[in-house]
Amino acid sequence: MQIIRFSHDEDIAYGIVDDGEVVVLANDPMFAGFDTTGERIPLADVTLLAPVIPRSKVVCVGKNYQDHAAEMGGTAPEAPLLFLKPNTSVIGPGDTIVRPPQSDRVEFEGELAIVIGRIAKNVSAENALDYVFGYTVAVDVTARDLQYADGQWARGKGFDTFCPLGPVIETEFDVDSAQLTTRVNGEVKQDAPTSLMIHKIADIIAYSSSVWTMLPGDVILTGTPAGVGPIVAGDSLEVEISGIGTLQNPVR
Amino acid sequence: MQIIRFSHDEDIAYGIVDDGEVVVLANDPMFAGFDTTGERIPLADVTLLAPVIPRSKVVCVGKNYQDHAAEMGGTAPEAPLLFLKPNTSVIGPGDTIVRPPQSDRVEFEGELAIVIGRIAKNVSAENALDYVFGYTVAVDVTARDLQYADGQWARGKGFDTFCPLGPVIETEFDVDSAQLTTRVNGEVKQDAPTSLMIHKIADIIAYSSSVWTMLPGDVILTGTPAGVGPIVAGDSLEVEISGIGTLQNPVR
Repeated sequence: MQIIRFSHDEDIAYGIVDDGEVVVLANDPMFAGFDTTGERIPLADVTLLAPVIPRSKVVCVGKNYQDHAAEMGGTAPEAPLLFLKPNTSVIGPGDTIVRPPQSDRVEFEGELAIVIGRIAKNVSAENALDYVFGYTVAVDVTARDLQYADGQWARGKGFDTFCPLGPVIETEFDVDSAQLTTRVNGEVKQDAPTSLMIHKIADIIAYSSSVWTMLPGDVILTGTPAGVGPIVAGDSLEVEISGIGTLQNPVR
Repeated sequence: MQIIRFSHDEDIAYGIVDDGEVVVLANDPMFAGFDTTGERIPLADVTLLAPVIPRSKVVCVGKNYQDHAAEMGGTAPEAPLLFLKPNTSVIGPGDTIVRPPQSDRVEFEGELAIVIGRIAKNVSAENALDYVFGYTVAVDVTARDLQYADGQWARGKGFDTFCPLGPVIETEFDVDSAQLTTRVNGEVKQDAPTSLMIHKIADIIAYSSSVWTMLPGDVILTGTPAGVGPIVAGDSLEVEISGIGTLQNPVR
């Protein structure tokens, strides 16, 4: 099932994509289930928004693909390396990534994102997938120079527009058969099976929930494969994950 | 003016402290001003809560007192060093700080906190104080061993209960004449004028707003002076800032 958040006639709502149309949901499905209003709208008539604005946090896992850890000149840590992006960094499909004047090198990192569906605290890896609402595509946009200058990654990865999410939340997704492909102006830059992630979905959720309470709508970015690189004004960035869709964002 | 958030008869509301009583506010004053319901309740009859749960983020400034930077074996950075705590780490006055089983060394860091009152993006230092709702007392509770093990500070400083805030938000506060005092079981551990902070209130707000949009209710922790140290189960932690009040939290 593909869930979207959208605007139409000045209203913002959630919906289910069904055969080129949107079945409008009565409420936020992460909090209130899948009751519909009965209304159907052509998909082409709505504007897609970020499928979720986290109530609390975007948790990210650093260096979770061996080849990316290697290209950054290091090795992958034994436990998931967690950091945070603020919810103010979230934008939706088609929204513009704005390169801040403080940075001379802004880079893309295409990632698979987990959307949490139930309050999760100290859950086991065995039960962790019960807490997943669905999956979406994300970009962990990074001001690489500021990330290194600070040591702490909050600023370099926390600017407004630095967390594109979308286009949909897919509730049925098989991480073991999906491919992540990032293109800049149509040229393939990252191309890897998501099955190569070191720390797996269930383990990441369990680990994260051992630190902080995960709330419905919180998002976990699961790390990026090799091939990261710069984006400049005028670029078109696309991250595609098979089984979910393609997230496109222009760069300014 | 002292603003509190409190529970009373199963309701949660904001109020103004006035002569031993609480003047009940009709709405969240960070969004909807200071209209009152007309009701007054004895202060002794209410339970104080964290005066704000940030809608987005708790921004923290690392190493913002020279003597603390020195005790950590380093020097203070030229620009504010920013990191994030999630809003799920916030607790209120009297709430228990829970030491997580993952850590062998949990430490207190008493801090002055700024509460943002208006949407702030790219504001100048000259205008920054216009965006302040008020000031409160905070503890940047830190699992020191995990902070160092990860390198990134998100986990070591992000556990549930690791951001006590309160007891009140003081809207008139003079940072240049205030003293911050931290006591563990009554023994003074930190005792410094807040005027010693390196990066000043207005500069911190301007800098933070050059990175991310600050939302009403977002909180900035301004750094801790020297004297940080461990807390263990059974301890009583008190952080007092003259002109605001004393934030007390037991430790488990």
